[in-house]
Amino acid sequence: MKNKERIPTMKDVAAEAGVALGTVSKVFNGFPVGESYRIRVEQAAKKLGYRVNNYARGMRTNRTNTISIIMPMICHPFFSKLTECIIRELDSHNYNTFVSVTDRNPKAEARCIRMVAQNKTDGIIALTYDPDFNNIGNIPFVSIDRSFTGSCPCITSDNYTGGQIAAAKLHELGCRKLLYARTGSPVPGETDKRGYGFENWCQTNSVSYDIINAKVDNDQMIEKIREMVENGTFDYDGIFCSTDLLLILIRNELNRLGIRIPEDVQMIGFDGSIDFYTGLPVCSSIEQPIEQLAKVAVNTILNYDSENTPSLICLPVRYIPGPTTKDWI
Amino acid sequence: MKNKERIPTMKDVAAEAGVALGTVSKVFNGFPVGESYRIRVEQAAKKLGYRVNNYARGMRTNRTNTISIIMPMICHPFFSKLTECIIRELDSHNYNTFVSVTDRNPKAEARCIRMVAQNKTDGIIALTYDPDFNNIGNIPFVSIDRSFTGSCPCITSDNYTGGQIAAAKLHELGCRKLLYARTGSPVPGETDKRGYGFENWCQTNSVSYDIINAKVDNDQMIEKIREMVENGTFDYDGIFCSTDLLLILIRNELNRLGIRIPEDVQMIGFDGSIDFYTGLPVCSSIEQPIEQLAKVAVNTILNYDSENTPSLICLPVRYIPGPTTKDWI
Repeated sequence: MKNKERIPTMKDVAAEAGVALGTVSKVFNGFPVGESYRIRVEQAAKKLGYRVNNYARGMRTNRTNTISIIMPMICHPFFSKLTECIIRELDSHNYNTFVSVTDRNPKAEARCIRMVAQNKTDGIIALTYDPDFNNIGNIPFVSIDRSFTGSCPCITSDNYTGGQIAAAKLHELGCRKLLYARTGSPVPGETDKRGYGFENWCQTNSVSYDIINAKVDNDQMIEKIREMVENGTFDYDGIFCSTDLLLILIRNELNRLGIRIPEDVQMIGFDGSIDFYTGLPVCSSIEQPIEQLAKVAVNTILNYDSENTPSLICLPVRYIPGPTTKDWI
Repeated sequence: MKNKERIPTMKDVAAEAGVALGTVSKVFNGFPVGESYRIRVEQAAKKLGYRVNNYARGMRTNRTNTISIIMPMICHPFFSKLTECIIRELDSHNYNTFVSVTDRNPKAEARCIRMVAQNKTDGIIALTYDPDFNNIGNIPFVSIDRSFTGSCPCITSDNYTGGQIAAAKLHELGCRKLLYARTGSPVPGETDKRGYGFENWCQTNSVSYDIINAKVDNDQMIEKIREMVENGTFDYDGIFCSTDLLLILIRNELNRLGIRIPEDVQMIGFDGSIDFYTGLPVCSSIEQPIEQLAKVAVNTILNYDSENTPSLICLPVRYIPGPTTKDWI
């Protein structure tokens, strides 16, 4: 509550630090200055209780040094790691990060966009399932896992190759009849390509396969699997699942029905989830390069150029063995 | 890129929507108006590409409708759920949320505070281990899990009662020699009270107990446990661990050494972690009321009154059985 009547200015900071006004300006605007100058300016600013008036600056330069990220949820191994990596990467560029959680709720997403626009964020990195999400005006926008037909860059794992790798690995491990099990949003997304890559490999290599595609509903998927086992039509020895979570749910159901994993059926998921408590893979999986996804998304939004940005950037994935295939020791 | 020369104003929106200017203002400032008016105003704003200039507003009212949250990490079951709950709660009050990740790094935390101050956020909710964190000026500040000797409100679980509940439950389940194992920050925090509550219950009820306190280092703790087992001084039949993660690490080591959980030794952790993939408790545990922690933290920061805020708010915890005690079926 000291200095309530007299708000310190940049000039006061310069005088206190014994440096030129331009040096103070550089420090507060993130330009390079000698480390000793930076420390003197920061100490002077702290002593005087000086704060950069970012609102005034926002009006002048129309840059806020903030990016918004939109996630369907955070309380989830893949999304929490992706969120953390994006925040850390933005932080390393001296950017602040707004985070919104929308949980596959288009209304909440629309509200986020409105709030984002009102706060004049410099851009949005979004993982969203809203079919109308496209319509966000002129804000720089980077999508993760969902392509908006060329209207903005999409950063994603190489899902197609991941599907191919999974099919090839199951076959290599001795599986002869494969199943692809997929749940998720009915909105078309890049993750659909996991199935297409899988299908392509099976067709090219004349391997027998089926596909079960349950829109969103995991319970529905479990129900189908159970029916097949109970009426004797479940004759697969290899299953590729669209996510690690789905794999665990199906594995638990198969175990309950007396089918052993990986002895009777081998399974590969997608995500590369590591158990938080043990540090071990949750299951055999196609690993998403989460840190690279974050780095490329941040790099793309900070150097946004709507004319010269690729519409789709796919990052390489790899197979990691886990306890649901026979190559796990 | 349309309307580049002519930026639409609130008046344009009012004319387009056919409503009074005051109605437009109410909509953009979050005041209640009839739903049909709100829709008309929003459609008009969308059509014209109108955006609220929040920077101008920030200068006028000195409110930004943003809160910053500071977390040591997000990629962690407790922190990711807490982060998500705080964001959702702030969102329900039409607040945007900045998120910073500091990973027990005082330097990163100091930088967060500087960035926060520069952005004129309305307040900070922080879970931090920085011993100097106190020094943040006049920004409304709510701490989670760490009390700053009365200088700002701290929201936390009732750790002391949790420690008592754990000791009482282990004794009720037949344990006669108890151990409290604790790792974590050397900075004093509210979570220290887990041990004090445990100790108090054991002393009051004349139950034999020991305490192992390893500052931060989980490896050091595992090493101590191994030594005790190997030299024959490990004679505990009940262990209370300061976190679920520590419990899992100790359990895995005890299993490796041939000690069965819960047959030989029963264990209770702290957090109430639920396995993401199975939805089951990771271990027997004292559950933290994460949603309530988030609600109370948000309520406290939005109604901040430095003169009349309690310095410490403890929310009730409860025991939940899991696979590391004999009451788990």
